[in-house]
Amino acid sequence: MSDDSSWTEDPYEVLRVQPGFRLSDQDTDASPGFDGGKKEGEKDLAEGAGRLADLQEKLFACGREGEPRSVLLVLQAMDTAGKGGIVSHVIGSMNPGGVHYAGFGKPTPDELAHDFLWRVWREVPAAGQVGVFDRSHYEDVLIGRVRSLAPPEELERRYGAINAFEKELAQSGTTIVKVMLHLGKEEQKKRLASRLERPDKLWKFNPADVDERLHWDSYQEAYQVVFDRTTSAYAPWFVVPADRKWYARAAVQRILIRALEGLGLEWPVPDYDVEEQKRRLDAS
Amino acid sequence: MSDDSSWTEDPYEVLRVQPGFRLSDQDTDASPGFDGGKKEGEKDLAEGAGRLADLQEKLFACGREGEPRSVLLVLQAMDTAGKGGIVSHVIGSMNPGGVHYAGFGKPTPDELAHDFLWRVWREVPAAGQVGVFDRSHYEDVLIGRVRSLAPPEELERRYGAINAFEKELAQSGTTIVKVMLHLGKEEQKKRLASRLERPDKLWKFNPADVDERLHWDSYQEAYQVVFDRTTSAYAPWFVVPADRKWYARAAVQRILIRALEGLGLEWPVPDYDVEEQKRRLDAS
Repeated sequence: MSDDSSWTEDPYEVLRVQPGFRLSDQDTDASPGFDGGKKEGEKDLAEGAGRLADLQEKLFACGREGEPRSVLLVLQAMDTAGKGGIVSHVIGSMNPGGVHYAGFGKPTPDELAHDFLWRVWREVPAAGQVGVFDRSHYEDVLIGRVRSLAPPEELERRYGAINAFEKELAQSGTTIVKVMLHLGKEEQKKRLASRLERPDKLWKFNPADVDERLHWDSYQEAYQVVFDRTTSAYAPWFVVPADRKWYARAAVQRILIRALEGLGLEWPVPDYDVEEQKRRLDAS
Repeated sequence: MSDDSSWTEDPYEVLRVQPGFRLSDQDTDASPGFDGGKKEGEKDLAEGAGRLADLQEKLFACGREGEPRSVLLVLQAMDTAGKGGIVSHVIGSMNPGGVHYAGFGKPTPDELAHDFLWRVWREVPAAGQVGVFDRSHYEDVLIGRVRSLAPPEELERRYGAINAFEKELAQSGTTIVKVMLHLGKEEQKKRLASRLERPDKLWKFNPADVDERLHWDSYQEAYQVVFDRTTSAYAPWFVVPADRKWYARAAVQRILIRALEGLGLEWPVPDYDVEEQKRRLDAS
């Protein structure tokens, strides 16, 4: 890294899924590329907040001037892995006016009456926006597969449909960043247990979380298939170790910063005469 | 105030529009109820951020459990008054997943083909959400009036329509807080001028801002009519002096905190057996 942070390697490189990637080989408790602990991680996150906000403002400004670029962050994870914390602590540093957040829960009857990509299309970011998908179309090949919510041939069809969808988005100007927060099974048990101990966290617990937990290995396998089938140059996956919340937040922030910097945007050139406007303003 | 902050009076009381209110009597450079300067104001804002975030999480939790309450913040102001800063620095401390932001710009042809409240209804907050209107239906009686964008009888009709709309929202569970950021004419000139001096702010300048500025007095009159006609117990107006950004942000944050505290919400009681779930989790 070119700055004086605690990153020794760029998480955009070190966490990106490459050919031959095996989820089962990844340590959920690691902090790859980061030379420091919680204190340094939180400092890094605080320092990156302004940088991310500035980059987002530039994207927004360019979008207003007709530049078609946008960014889409897709967040996937097992329950309690920290998606909410990423939204609060990473996304929260950007101007809400330029962020389009969409949470995808259990599909409604209206959503089920359409193709699985229908509700997703309605939420893709507009030019100038940073879109955030809290869960996504990947649920349709994760819980969809683990719980056999669709026939095998339909599940099989979806991987190709997802690739075609993401390619279309990318070609129309959206930089896609897909993040799986990779949590350990024991760490999840601790986090679920702590929700059951705190009156202000009981609402976050759902008995269905334990039901899904009983299918842990099947979910890991389903994620492996997702990485094998939907990793592409135009829509890369990043697997972020998530047992340490401070690490996951700092890493996702860096990945987003890198994606925004990669757009190479410049502040828009005004379509008005600056000196003329100064005179008008002065006389007003 | 019951805490040890620099507030000597509650901005929810001191800034709320009361019968007989005159906009022209209000000092845009004042900091009513606050005993301190920029440093204390920024400290107060930082301290309030966590409190606001906690209250919003509780509202969100209750919404998930079927509680129909929501909060709607309406932001109105002359250009450069600092709406964007309120959104970043006050709204930004809440979880974006529970915030519904809607910016209302120049109406599209589709919007113009409907009643003026049509596009507003589509953006009202759902149960558990904090909605933020960056401009709103009030534009239709502000620029609508100043620029004669509708016939006089239609403009006249709208005040009643707005009151009926807000009453309906309030009765269905939405706590409405309407804020006008009150900027001085000279301060606006300074802020517009500074946008013309900075390459990274030129995009924020629009020659139309100077056009509107030439109608300053008409806008102030139109706002006065708005306060006279649309101030109600269920949808109060707050006029916040906005020449000092730190003051406006701290004040709006306090007003929102008061509105959320006023809901008197408690953390939801779970509809599952906590001990049973602990056993299930333990065995998983």
